[in-house]
Amino acid sequence: MVFRVDLPVRWVDTDALKVVHYSNYFRYVEAAEEELYRSLGFNFKELSEKYNIQIPRVEAFCSYKLAARFGDVLTVVLRLGEKTEKTMKYDFEIRRKADDELLCEGYIKIIGLDIVSWRATALPPHLVEKVSGLLE
Amino acid sequence: MVFRVDLPVRWVDTDALKVVHYSNYFRYVEAAEEELYRSLGFNFKELSEKYNIQIPRVEAFCSYKLAARFGDVLTVVLRLGEKTEKTMKYDFEIRRKADDELLCEGYIKIIGLDIVSWRATALPPHLVEKVSGLLE
Amino acid sequence: MVFRVDLPVRWVDTDALKVVHYSNYFRYVEAAEEELYRSLGFNFKELSEKYNIQIPRVEAFCSYKLAARFGDVLTVVLRLGEKTEKTMKYDFEIRRKADDELLCEGYIKIIGLDIVSWRATALPPHLVEKVSGLLE
Amino acid sequence: MVFRVDLPVRWVDTDALKVVHYSNYFRYVEAAEEELYRSLGFNFKELSEKYNIQIPRVEAFCSYKLAARFGDVLTVVLRLGEKTEKTMKYDFEIRRKADDELLCEGYIKIIGLDIVSWRATALPPHLVEKVSGLLE
Repeated sequence: MVFRVDLPVRWVDTDALKVVHYSNYFRYVEAAEEELYRSLGFNFKELSEKYNIQIPRVEAFCSYKLAARFGDVLTVVLRLGEKTEKTMKYDFEIRRKADDELLCEGYIKIIGLDIVSWRATALPPHLVEKVSGLLE
Repeated sequence: MVFRVDLPVRWVDTDALKVVHYSNYFRYVEAAEEELYRSLGFNFKELSEKYNIQIPRVEAFCSYKLAARFGDVLTVVLRLGEKTEKTMKYDFEIRRKADDELLCEGYIKIIGLDIVSWRATALPPHLVEKVSGLLE
Repeated sequence: MVFRVDLPVRWVDTDALKVVHYSNYFRYVEAAEEELYRSLGFNFKELSEKYNIQIPRVEAFCSYKLAARFGDVLTVVLRLGEKTEKTMKYDFEIRRKADDELLCEGYIKIIGLDIVSWRATALPPHLVEKVSGLLE
Repeated sequence: MVFRVDLPVRWVDTDALKVVHYSNYFRYVEAAEEELYRSLGFNFKELSEKYNIQIPRVEAFCSYKLAARFGDVLTVVLRLGEKTEKTMKYDFEIRRKADDELLCEGYIKIIGLDIVSWRATALPPHLVEKVSGLLE
């Protein structure tokens, strides 16, 4: 199973080459991740308030194929990659909605972070369970 | 008449005070303006490609009342303010959707810009007509 | 007296009109404010850690004259405007360093915020004193 | 040889976890790349205006070790990685200047893009020559 969300390119996300700045694709991926969690009934804030856990990224990778432009609507597709007790990988694709062309693909790897001790910790079980339930 | 659009606060829009950075409210207003134009069947790109006209901002103002936080959904409300041949003002309010609390309000003033001569020019008539048709 | 700082336009700050996005001028003003405080020996973080006070913006205004482009170095000029016990205004100008052309001008008004009660409070005395000492 | 540049963390670059948002490290790397080119006497704009060539990223990777916070000054270190006729890799490290701690490391790979045909092309020879002259 995959999770999909459509996001319009915003004017502010473009640069003087008239395409989306490469760093912004990571922001689209995070927006998709936020929508994934919203669809599952929680968010980053609840993780830190209820569990003292946050889930920062330990790795981020993107391979760029085609540029997105203002006016495009993008489809961000998330798939679940490798899991360990402390980490989880999201593989992503970003496609142009109009013609399904692949614009870029990559992954982010998240880790459990105890925000009291500021040390790596297990990912919150209900996050792993819910995300796995939807994406596996 | 007003134009309304709901936008979730993105994690990247917050700062270390755990609230939305003040410059980002202007970005939400622009996202609302983009959605307004999309609903009317055109966009910034079409203006420059068909008419050689862009509509940069000549003034921007915001008065901040309450902070938005991650997890909030915001309602951006646009109203049409004063118009001249070359300029048009959008008055905006940003409210927290959950309880309709006013978070900030202000305006942006746009101007017609001939992107060949790079001089001020009349706003594109169909933009003025369509926006006025909806918001007056 | 004024405070001046030079900042290069970054590629990511431009948009598809090949000029700096209007919201980014507020970010340049904040960078100048950060450099002002650094030159005076403190920063936003110290204000919250030592005094439980932050200084969010309650108003922001900018009037845009000429566009900045990639390759430009900008000079941000800060002047002290009206002060009250709880608020302080910074008037700013942003000029193109190469020819001193005025690109935009405006102001931001900051307020003391008690981050425990989350209520308006007096600005930290040492901030007012040091900034006034330099800019009055 | 390496290229180094010091950049202060800006308040706007932090998020509600009180650390720099992960996408912003790529922006620091780009700022360093811009400073590298400035030190060599050219910039992105000149590449497109003189040669009709731009150098977008085809790959970006970052591995995050420690978080940067507001108040930190970062040292971005660029090294030259593999080169082909059309591509060049910059390996980067970002360190906290105060104690030289490694915060993150990764690479970006740039490609020559003919902005008339919008096809991959050889990197501009003078860019390759100058960068190699400094970094090899």
